[in-house]
Amino acid sequence: MSRTETAIAICQEAGEMAQSYFAQRDSLAVDKKGAQDWVSEADRNVEVLIRERLEAAFPDDGIVGEEHAPKQGTSGFVWVIDPIDGTTNFVNGLPAWTIVLAGVADSMTQVGVIHDPIHGETFVAQRGQGATLNGKAMSVAAHVPMASGTVSVGYSNRVAPENILPVVADIVGAGAMFHRNASGALSLAYVAAGRLLGYLEEHMNAWDCLAGQLLIAEAGGIVEDQNADDMIANGGRVVVGAPQVFEALLGMADRAWQNTRPS
Amino acid sequence: MSRTETAIAICQEAGEMAQSYFAQRDSLAVDKKGAQDWVSEADRNVEVLIRERLEAAFPDDGIVGEEHAPKQGTSGFVWVIDPIDGTTNFVNGLPAWTIVLAGVADSMTQVGVIHDPIHGETFVAQRGQGATLNGKAMSVAAHVPMASGTVSVGYSNRVAPENILPVVADIVGAGAMFHRNASGALSLAYVAAGRLLGYLEEHMNAWDCLAGQLLIAEAGGIVEDQNADDMIANGGRVVVGAPQVFEALLGMADRAWQNTRPS
Repeated sequence: MSRTETAIAICQEAGEMAQSYFAQRDSLAVDKKGAQDWVSEADRNVEVLIRERLEAAFPDDGIVGEEHAPKQGTSGFVWVIDPIDGTTNFVNGLPAWTIVLAGVADSMTQVGVIHDPIHGETFVAQRGQGATLNGKAMSVAAHVPMASGTVSVGYSNRVAPENILPVVADIVGAGAMFHRNASGALSLAYVAAGRLLGYLEEHMNAWDCLAGQLLIAEAGGIVEDQNADDMIANGGRVVVGAPQVFEALLGMADRAWQNTRPS
Repeated sequence: MSRTETAIAICQEAGEMAQSYFAQRDSLAVDKKGAQDWVSEADRNVEVLIRERLEAAFPDDGIVGEEHAPKQGTSGFVWVIDPIDGTTNFVNGLPAWTIVLAGVADSMTQVGVIHDPIHGETFVAQRGQGATLNGKAMSVAAHVPMASGTVSVGYSNRVAPENILPVVADIVGAGAMFHRNASGALSLAYVAAGRLLGYLEEHMNAWDCLAGQLLIAEAGGIVEDQNADDMIANGGRVVVGAPQVFEALLGMADRAWQNTRPS
């Protein structure tokens, strides 16, 4: 199997494990610590499963994940794992979370998989080969004007939360609707599938965004240039969108977030 | 069967019809008019199905729906239908939309059903009898402080869109996360189920909110007082939340939306 096919199979197996954790939620004690322990266990164990499968298939590749220490590889190919993107949704019972796996080489994302087990949707891109949803070609919403569309945003405790406010105001001012579903990777997948017009976040980690950025680029959207190695090291801001709205979104990001434009 | 049991069965049958329309989405022509015609047909036909079932079961009850003219009844009991709440999501392919049915008598909502066919979740409340999700008792997130929770918001083209901005700013300022998934009824159901802390919208129609408001009240939350007959006639603002955050949400609504407090 190709790296892409293997990545898809791994994400789907990991999705089954995550979904079985999610289904246990109702039977858990409701106290906050118990819920936090449970989601942490789910996150860790899903990542371990993905790591084990990757190590078996590609023993020379490097691995970076949200939950465990990085593994140095020798092949020049590095896998970047977000075992559960949208853990707040996961812990609260909202059905908006995903498994995310990206493959990086030559400082560029080569493969991106975002798998949503609840809805049975697997979003896949391979550099230069286009993007698919469940095996069918997908594309961004290239014919929807800003004022008829929806732009999604994200923010986290890694930034000053009020920094998102001018972006929301600019989206509303442009006549678009804003959206925030608390899973950045799922929102990026939806941009690639043409369900949302674009996405902005001041700081994302590599495991949250590399797969989605490749999906969007391969689905005909525009992605602010990022060096994937820099993203793995430091994370960075994410500005993506359908071509007809991208420049406007970039302007919103520049106005709201000083000195965050990638060098 | 009781009115509540009948309402549940009708919503579930309507959900199957809506879901079969939703599944057709991928095979549609992608132009905007075609998509709009398709969602309008889905909306109208789901409402017709619900009306036919209600008329057969309760011929003396009144019916008010989003898509068709009201039917006067003689029983004093009025059904209020939103065949598909979240039509923008429906048309764009986002899996966040619901079937909504409320029953009103004596100027109060007596029965509320919100059915989410994609996720197989049916949220039900009967005045004075509590609220359930798929038959199991549910309750609001009464132990989550504002600064650890997520508050959802909605807005539409019936209001000045910028009026939502001070509310978003106040949510961020209170240390909570904001959320907007473009289905007001689904968001209200999630507040009732303890997945979100509260919800604010400057103007909702009766078919969007009456069921959800009853769900929240019966799940231990607080709902700004509304006369259901006034809501059917004019719509109005919606402020709901878990008890520990309700007063703060009410303050946000009063600051943002002058002269909207119900008399």
